[in-house]
Amino acid sequence: MALEKSLKGMNQSSPVGGQGAATHVPSPSGVRGLHSFKQLSQLFEEKFNVRHFPQCPENLYDAAQYLLTVKGKRIRPVMCIMGNELFDTINPDAWNVAFAIELFHNFTLIHDDIMDKAPLRRGIQTVHTKYGEPTALLSGDVMLVAAYECINKIHNEHIHQVLHLFNNTAMQVCEGQQLDMEFAQRTSLQEKSENVNLDDYEKMIELKTSVLLAASLRLGAVLGGAGLGNQQHLYEFGKNLGIAFQVQDDYLDAFGDPEKFGKKNGGDIIANKKTFLLIQAMNICSASQLKELHHLLKNNDDDKIIRVINIYKSCKVDEWAKELKAKYTSKAMEHLEEIAVLSSRKKPLEELAHYLLDREM
Amino acid sequence: MALEKSLKGMNQSSPVGGQGAATHVPSPSGVRGLHSFKQLSQLFEEKFNVRHFPQCPENLYDAAQYLLTVKGKRIRPVMCIMGNELFDTINPDAWNVAFAIELFHNFTLIHDDIMDKAPLRRGIQTVHTKYGEPTALLSGDVMLVAAYECINKIHNEHIHQVLHLFNNTAMQVCEGQQLDMEFAQRTSLQEKSENVNLDDYEKMIELKTSVLLAASLRLGAVLGGAGLGNQQHLYEFGKNLGIAFQVQDDYLDAFGDPEKFGKKNGGDIIANKKTFLLIQAMNICSASQLKELHHLLKNNDDDKIIRVINIYKSCKVDEWAKELKAKYTSKAMEHLEEIAVLSSRKKPLEELAHYLLDREM
Repeated sequence: MALEKSLKGMNQSSPVGGQGAATHVPSPSGVRGLHSFKQLSQLFEEKFNVRHFPQCPENLYDAAQYLLTVKGKRIRPVMCIMGNELFDTINPDAWNVAFAIELFHNFTLIHDDIMDKAPLRRGIQTVHTKYGEPTALLSGDVMLVAAYECINKIHNEHIHQVLHLFNNTAMQVCEGQQLDMEFAQRTSLQEKSENVNLDDYEKMIELKTSVLLAASLRLGAVLGGAGLGNQQHLYEFGKNLGIAFQVQDDYLDAFGDPEKFGKKNGGDIIANKKTFLLIQAMNICSASQLKELHHLLKNNDDDKIIRVINIYKSCKVDEWAKELKAKYTSKAMEHLEEIAVLSSRKKPLEELAHYLLDREM
Repeated sequence: MALEKSLKGMNQSSPVGGQGAATHVPSPSGVRGLHSFKQLSQLFEEKFNVRHFPQCPENLYDAAQYLLTVKGKRIRPVMCIMGNELFDTINPDAWNVAFAIELFHNFTLIHDDIMDKAPLRRGIQTVHTKYGEPTALLSGDVMLVAAYECINKIHNEHIHQVLHLFNNTAMQVCEGQQLDMEFAQRTSLQEKSENVNLDDYEKMIELKTSVLLAASLRLGAVLGGAGLGNQQHLYEFGKNLGIAFQVQDDYLDAFGDPEKFGKKNGGDIIANKKTFLLIQAMNICSASQLKELHHLLKNNDDDKIIRVINIYKSCKVDEWAKELKAKYTSKAMEHLEEIAVLSSRKKPLEELAHYLLDREM
């Protein structure tokens, strides 16, 4: 098939990714042939760039297809392939699971956007804005079903384990979205006790964002025949990477260089979004700063962004966030270190960590 | 476990259902032990009457559990068990798939109610009315995932076939809901050409309602080791039964005895619901009757119900509906006839057909 051809071609013509082939220790298991994140991303895109649904009913399936055609970084499905290739040459089943993961991720985006009443996603209209809420809801449903049909294509050997991890992760992601909505609804910010607790927020981020990254890696590992210990370390690598990424994302919204970050500062502040920074600031700031924060959250003053950022700086939550990101990054790398494969096989995952986390902080 | 105990108890103390044990041909495969619809319904209820979700997040999982606690007829999951017992003693895996089917059905109800903005379901508030649309949407999602985790409990031997049929059916049910919504949106009824075509309506009913009944039977049959031909006949039995049931339901809304039917006549007429009767009437009535129908659909006159029913009677769509139901019932029974098992094993399914279709028409 197209994929296998592409894979073969890739193996022959550009055996190694951006890590520099010379630094690799060649091995019989084919370390030389390991793909970079970028290569896998391209391979995935080529394969995924098809219509995933029947033609009729047109509205339903066009709505389902709509978001899929916008190219994304495809981080999650590529992590599945990377988790697979960490242990062996790529198992064709890993592509099926990677498809399922990307379909699942898009299903969550469609439904989250309905719940959050978001008008835009990836710079285009959200599915419900374009097709209406009922059709969007249903298009999310068929996308989730389509994800399960992709899983159904894998061989018997791993299907129970894959399905169980996939289901478990799907439940957790839904739990994360529920917690996120509940945090957002806590509008009464007068009382410190009603604030979101940092541990609760971390748990929400873990569920809503990190477990899918972690599970993507682990699903690939399962298909690669990895042992339980290796699976667990890989999962923890992904989970901590995800939290570190979210800390970075929250930091960059307030302190990032808009030129490099690609968007204006303060979007989260304007939207009163709970972030690592806001939650920590509310927990450690002075009584007068807390009063000011409450005022700023309730009113959209013209100087809201700069005043919130000034409180952040004054409480040093910028420094705190850097340390927090470093803590989670370091946890992630420790788990990667613990995985019992040739360290040269880990290069692509190290590259991925740098790709995701090497933003200026 | 509780279920197996119950099953054993049932087999010992009341071996045969309401069909009269004396008429059964005893066989080594245990025909005497076949359960009636009512027995299986009770057994299912006992087993299903548990909390299916974790405790936290409370709102999410309470919303998911809420609708499940209202006892229904559990027709679909019981059909799965009946499809299974048609071929062999009940395979414990059939209970897992029956759970999946009931969870799936409730998932569709929750999401359909959101899309249709329905305030009530089974006489109680709909999930979104009680818990809000975002939480209801998400509770439907977790219910679908929970359904797949039930399927994941079955043995390897049949998992691919079961998952494939389940996925395919799930897609079709979503397609049916989409078509139903699109029919409902065709508000401009001035032009006959814009009316819903009878074939299109039948297709919609088949997708939205019948395929799940058909698939429930067939999923049981797959787990019972049925051959392909038997599976197909059983599927067609369920599909035609489902359409006959819908014809009956549409008929009873207009012509049923409210005492026996349990609800007032004309609910569909007031709601301008597309039904077999309305669609056929619009296709065969005179120009003046069509004009009157269009007027009645656009205005909620006090005498709307009686005037619509008068048009139905004058066009004889009541007689036509009786014939249509008979046609589908007879098709269903022909397929049941074709299934190559001892005819005595088919008694519970015949009983089911009578139970569903023996309403006064």
